Amino acid sequence: MRVKLVVAYDGTNYCGWQVQPNGLSVQQVLNETLSQLFDQHIEVVGASRTDAGVHALGNVCAFDVDTRMPGEKIAYALNQRLPEDIVIQESAEVDAAFHPRFSKSDKTYEYRILNRRFADPTLRHNTYFFHHKLDVERMQRAADYLVGEHDFTSFASIHSQTNTFVRTIYEITVTRDASDVVTIRVRGNGFLYNMVRIIAGTLIQIGTGLKEVEDMPRILEGKDRELAGPTAPPEGLTLIHISYKD
Amino acid sequence: MRVKLVVAYDGTNYCGWQVQPNGLSVQQVLNETLSQLFDQHIEVVGASRTDAGVHALGNVCAFDVDTRMPGEKIAYALNQRLPEDIVIQESAEVDAAFHPRFSKSDKTYEYRILNRRFADPTLRHNTYFFHHKLDVERMQRAADYLVGEHDFTSFASIHSQTNTFVRTIYEITVTRDASDVVTIRVRGNGFLYNMVRIIAGTLIQIGTGLKEVEDMPRILEGKDRELAGPTAPPEGLTLIHISYKD
Repeated sequence: MRVKLVVAYDGTNYCGWQVQPNGLSVQQVLNETLSQLFDQHIEVVGASRTDAGVHALGNVCAFDVDTRMPGEKIAYALNQRLPEDIVIQESAEVDAAFHPRFSKSDKTYEYRILNRRFADPTLRHNTYFFHHKLDVERMQRAADYLVGEHDFTSFASIHSQTNTFVRTIYEITVTRDASDVVTIRVRGNGFLYNMVRIIAGTLIQIGTGLKEVEDMPRILEGKDRELAGPTAPPEGLTLIHISYKD
Repeated sequence: MRVKLVVAYDGTNYCGWQVQPNGLSVQQVLNETLSQLFDQHIEVVGASRTDAGVHALGNVCAFDVDTRMPGEKIAYALNQRLPEDIVIQESAEVDAAFHPRFSKSDKTYEYRILNRRFADPTLRHNTYFFHHKLDVERMQRAADYLVGEHDFTSFASIHSQTNTFVRTIYEITVTRDASDVVTIRVRGNGFLYNMVRIIAGTLIQIGTGLKEVEDMPRILEGKDRELAGPTAPPEGLTLIHISYKD
């Protein structure tokens, strides 16, 4: 049977989602733990190959297994065996046609910036600390230009492996909470390699005044990575949720 | 001159605030870093001797130093030398009569409980994960009995060293946020050893129905540690703020 897992992890101590020759990945830990649990060779396929230091509350992966264990019980059996920085949030038997990456989905990411004079050590793994004052209203106005279907070449790492740079962003909001955490929340039908972090790096430059709000449409239309801002650090990024269209 | 520091720390990797023969404390790191910075022997006196694993956003300490460095610059010089899990939020020259523990103050603590079916690995150091459903409205009604001046013997560890168990709680709120973090926020003129964690452990029992709301006044009046709930784990507790009166 095919099983879908919703996986949360603290990415701090991993080299990212995907198996790497050097370094421990989330995928490797899941492969090994599942293979041990079911006493058969299991390899998971993930929806989002998050980078080193990036977190997830709801990444999705799937695997095939020969077992009589009910799908929804697998989460409990796995959580007893996983390290405390990886926690399965849900497990379920799914149709054999389900594929975490190729089945149609919406993804929601949050990029969180602690924007105040001094760092908060209790948030250092989950936020990017940035002390120059950010103008959230400017950031929101610039972000609004990204909503819709666009060619996001300017916001893709040169390491992107893809046929098309066209993606759709449904929604992007920039908010500041009472603790001075500025959150960029973005929902779209797919994201290029480093896309959310490059959007965050660009919005930060607009938030400080280093770039103008009106630069955003020009960056987008220029289709040139050099025009956008830097790739913001990984610790600010969390994959919040993936929603599949049946 | 006497200098006051407002100190934030992630308590995960420390044996607590106070210098211990075995284990590294926040106080020891500050003593050593300050002694090195000013090239003289310096010992800080802290306001709150938080336990191992307990965090602070605003603990306060003070020390005497012979220097011409302006008080407000000391935070920057210190932060360059401190490990990333201790961050000074503010430094200032204060009156020589100022004492972090004996000068009159209000303290605010938060005890945070992640209350849902599965843990969130990104919150594991800053919240206590508890999966039985908590009734926040019951917890708030029980907490209301604690407001005011009372003898808190029932909520003090037997290791408390104090002349009197009478303390005043000004305010206590129990709220649940959209991420199912239940926060017990309490402000008072002083707290006995483990008092906030024992209050949290008792409110958790009331929140699950193991104890009744109406048990709270009986526990308080009984002046017996055995009547209250267990001491909730340290990772849920954060010292938020200390406010000195003039």
